[in-house]
Amino acid sequence: MTTVAFIGLGNMGAPMAANLLKNGFGVRVFDLVPATVSTLAAQGAEPCSSAIVAAQDAAIVISMLPEGRHAKALYLGDEKGAGLITQIHRDSLLIDCSTIDADSARAIAAAADARGMAFVDAPVSGGTAGAIAATLTFICGGSESAVARAKPVLQAMGRNIFHAGPAGSGQIAKICNNMLLGVLMAGTCEALSLGIDNGLDPAVLSDIIKASSGGNWTLEKYNPCPGVMAGVPASNDYKGGFMVDLMVKDLGLATQAALSTRSAMPMGALARNLFVHHAKQGHGHEDFSSLFCQYRPKSN
Amino acid sequence: MTTVAFIGLGNMGAPMAANLLKNGFGVRVFDLVPATVSTLAAQGAEPCSSAIVAAQDAAIVISMLPEGRHAKALYLGDEKGAGLITQIHRDSLLIDCSTIDADSARAIAAAADARGMAFVDAPVSGGTAGAIAATLTFICGGSESAVARAKPVLQAMGRNIFHAGPAGSGQIAKICNNMLLGVLMAGTCEALSLGIDNGLDPAVLSDIIKASSGGNWTLEKYNPCPGVMAGVPASNDYKGGFMVDLMVKDLGLATQAALSTRSAMPMGALARNLFVHHAKQGHGHEDFSSLFCQYRPKSN
Amino acid sequence: MTTVAFIGLGNMGAPMAANLLKNGFGVRVFDLVPATVSTLAAQGAEPCSSAIVAAQDAAIVISMLPEGRHAKALYLGDEKGAGLITQIHRDSLLIDCSTIDADSARAIAAAADARGMAFVDAPVSGGTAGAIAATLTFICGGSESAVARAKPVLQAMGRNIFHAGPAGSGQIAKICNNMLLGVLMAGTCEALSLGIDNGLDPAVLSDIIKASSGGNWTLEKYNPCPGVMAGVPASNDYKGGFMVDLMVKDLGLATQAALSTRSAMPMGALARNLFVHHAKQGHGHEDFSSLFCQYRPKSN
Amino acid sequence: MTTVAFIGLGNMGAPMAANLLKNGFGVRVFDLVPATVSTLAAQGAEPCSSAIVAAQDAAIVISMLPEGRHAKALYLGDEKGAGLITQIHRDSLLIDCSTIDADSARAIAAAADARGMAFVDAPVSGGTAGAIAATLTFICGGSESAVARAKPVLQAMGRNIFHAGPAGSGQIAKICNNMLLGVLMAGTCEALSLGIDNGLDPAVLSDIIKASSGGNWTLEKYNPCPGVMAGVPASNDYKGGFMVDLMVKDLGLATQAALSTRSAMPMGALARNLFVHHAKQGHGHEDFSSLFCQYRPKSN
Repeated sequence: MTTVAFIGLGNMGAPMAANLLKNGFGVRVFDLVPATVSTLAAQGAEPCSSAIVAAQDAAIVISMLPEGRHAKALYLGDEKGAGLITQIHRDSLLIDCSTIDADSARAIAAAADARGMAFVDAPVSGGTAGAIAATLTFICGGSESAVARAKPVLQAMGRNIFHAGPAGSGQIAKICNNMLLGVLMAGTCEALSLGIDNGLDPAVLSDIIKASSGGNWTLEKYNPCPGVMAGVPASNDYKGGFMVDLMVKDLGLATQAALSTRSAMPMGALARNLFVHHAKQGHGHEDFSSLFCQYRPKSN
Repeated sequence: MTTVAFIGLGNMGAPMAANLLKNGFGVRVFDLVPATVSTLAAQGAEPCSSAIVAAQDAAIVISMLPEGRHAKALYLGDEKGAGLITQIHRDSLLIDCSTIDADSARAIAAAADARGMAFVDAPVSGGTAGAIAATLTFICGGSESAVARAKPVLQAMGRNIFHAGPAGSGQIAKICNNMLLGVLMAGTCEALSLGIDNGLDPAVLSDIIKASSGGNWTLEKYNPCPGVMAGVPASNDYKGGFMVDLMVKDLGLATQAALSTRSAMPMGALARNLFVHHAKQGHGHEDFSSLFCQYRPKSN
Repeated sequence: MTTVAFIGLGNMGAPMAANLLKNGFGVRVFDLVPATVSTLAAQGAEPCSSAIVAAQDAAIVISMLPEGRHAKALYLGDEKGAGLITQIHRDSLLIDCSTIDADSARAIAAAADARGMAFVDAPVSGGTAGAIAATLTFICGGSESAVARAKPVLQAMGRNIFHAGPAGSGQIAKICNNMLLGVLMAGTCEALSLGIDNGLDPAVLSDIIKASSGGNWTLEKYNPCPGVMAGVPASNDYKGGFMVDLMVKDLGLATQAALSTRSAMPMGALARNLFVHHAKQGHGHEDFSSLFCQYRPKSN
Repeated sequence: MTTVAFIGLGNMGAPMAANLLKNGFGVRVFDLVPATVSTLAAQGAEPCSSAIVAAQDAAIVISMLPEGRHAKALYLGDEKGAGLITQIHRDSLLIDCSTIDADSARAIAAAADARGMAFVDAPVSGGTAGAIAATLTFICGGSESAVARAKPVLQAMGRNIFHAGPAGSGQIAKICNNMLLGVLMAGTCEALSLGIDNGLDPAVLSDIIKASSGGNWTLEKYNPCPGVMAGVPASNDYKGGFMVDLMVKDLGLATQAALSTRSAMPMGALARNLFVHHAKQGHGHEDFSSLFCQYRPKSN
């Protein structure tokens, strides 16, 4: 039985760790919030008093944290103490499933590499629903051998596992994808809204575009116009789904990557700013397809 | 045998008229360029000395013209003479396949309606290849009965026939689609370019995004990065395909529609301006996926 | 005593006509709203039953109308009747003070020119306050001689008179200025907002930028941040001033001009879309500096 | 005689240090490039073998470095050694004149404050010409007392000294100003270009806008259209002035600040991307007003 240390038991981490238990892994858990540790312990996990305690006797460490600074503190240390990379067995496999900035991912990867440790960045897509159903997609960065070692444990939590390239590449690929998703959503909102303003039925227009060169994931799976598609946030008052605030975060990560490589990213930058304006108007906790409302006259 | 008058025998119109001949329609043709009339006559069409002459004895009139002002001159007349709508049988069916601004399409439709004539705006997608192969997509606006009457003749030239709504809706739906296509292309260029700048292989990244929430038509059919996909303009020095200048035209039509209804269209507007900047640098005649080059360092 | 026909007696036109009366001009007035005609008649103007009646015995015709289609109907005619250009003395001087699209201005100028009539497009800036105080700025397009003939009557209503170039140039210059104003305002809003978000006092920051390379008219005269400058709309709940809806109109005119010459205008296009989004949220009747609120967290 | 340590003797730092010598300060200099140290030594400065050696016997330390990471290494230390803040007298005054990201400036300020040292961030504007002529503008962040102590030495190198707020505020204010400058320049380029495309003389249009609500610093001092204004880069093949690459850097710093505070900055973000596209086409070393060329048809 492989033992996995799981650090970070939030909305995503908790169901992911639970799926490891269901698949027969031994799981040692830690989170700054004690209640989340207790919940996992009740499901059979071993509660630990710190990340290092959790990691010391585990073959694999998985982390699921909010931002780059948290991941850097965990692996590289901070003013409160040393990081995992210098504290645990060299032959542990480190897997960071957080979505963080590429520079932080590369810094962690470089430090792990310097000590001869295998590190995989493996950000996910699929949301909390995918985390619960074990249908997540993992986009991995790391050496061929490290990603091969990571596969069995990732397969217990998800369905598709991509290998994007060397360490850090998982973050980059996810950032590129989500930046493009932000662009697709904003573009689709305005195409549908332009059609409505000019007398078209958004459902008919959606069908035409889906079958034409404007076809894209948001029209297939996530139509932003209320009433066009059943079971999506747009048809449920924009509740659930992927929050505007998280799209702002991901577009911010893409912007940071573009700054760091001096890349042009005009469409992604504009999408970020449209979502920030939307969040400032009080919509940060709604699903990101609610950007559609920015294009419609306010009814009141 | 139904007789069709075909007005406008350019790169698109000529092969469309030829497909009508192949399908057994009688075809009466006119174009301002005599040589194009002769070419069609050699294939069996009846050459005519003016649009009105061509239209007078035809059950159906089809036009394929560059811009709204040409279509308005044809149907509504101009300082040189009266338009078709007042000159031919009331029971003729008028089909304009040009891609023009919605206001012009609506003006023509209103005039036809006022005289009790059936008018369908039926802009196409599929390019010259689709025109030759009779695989065009037609996006129609008009009454149910008018579109039903148009179907047999359109099926001789294409494969998919959509009914977007009342007269003018065909243009609007096409404009919305092509505006979104411009956004998808620009967004895809920058997602791939950001990945490359950060060390990813564009083919691997394309595969990941295609299978994820950034998936869209340009990644499926028209990858803008040279060498990723065979048989697309990007892998042929951006020759062939859909010219930057035509994308600029279509994004201009979308902008005009947005002005006319006071709609917001920030992403489409930015896409238009990126393509105009690209055209100004001398790339107007390249395929529109060549926008990708704006994101890459100039090699010289 | 020179007799002037004044067509269009709205918020701008009425005080402009009144200033002509005060300066000793004979003024013949017409407007579609009878009450506005009566008000001017009470001040000494000659009320007329139509634009043509007003214009027939006048040496100078001045129009102040909402949009290009109104100006075209007046000068070129429409389905309701012939236009002034074919109905009045060839030696009348025509001055259109409306802010309209350049294409309409050029069409009117061309028709006037064809009949040998002098036409000046002379859009104004300065708002209703300037119209009342006779301190408007006129930006004129037309021949040297036509503009010279227009000067005395314009000076009775304003202070600065610019000659931008041949007919149509007045509209273009005004559109270019107002488009840039929209860009300055949006840019200034976000520079001040970024400073506030990072702990700066907006008054101190405004003083620094005014004295530096970011200095611009909005910081000098029209600071968008409440409390920084006395007597501006920002310090009066964004009441008064220049409405968001009018800025949307002017940015639309600039966009139309850019479409018509296939010019790039990315910053102006983005500014237009930001103002449209702002108007859609219900702020169309506020002063245009209220765009600042889009950058601030909504307080509620 | 006050002794100043000057660290960083590049295009800006060398003439600044020379002006201190001319004003009677004792100057101890260090730079990683030995030749620049020798040049200053020949003018009377004391050459030093390291930054710490230079700083140890100085009452004031001034640094002029390319980026935040260099300033952080100098003051906070890096893997090569400890930083100045822990190595020199507590009563030294630290002045960083580099233009760097606000987060780095705030980190240095916080570390200085923790040790009870006075730190002023004082980025400059005015370019190399201003550095040579001692006419720079300094935008300072720091306590009242620290800025008061810094004034005499800054006055030896410049003319205007602003106090923007607490430590870090100098960087923020400069970033806000330069971001807005990028917006003004892009907006002015497109307003002039739109005018030209529509038949206006750019000199006439510039005069009109300067006197109207579109007036801004770039039209006053730095017209981007060749031939309109004498003595500016636009009239000298875009040589000299402020490089596109530096504008890209400053717009990047503004973007970073906006990310760090989750601020909206759509106009600044678009300006950054237009300048990056321009740089990618090979114009990074030209003056930033050369963005104007992106709007004009390429002549060849």
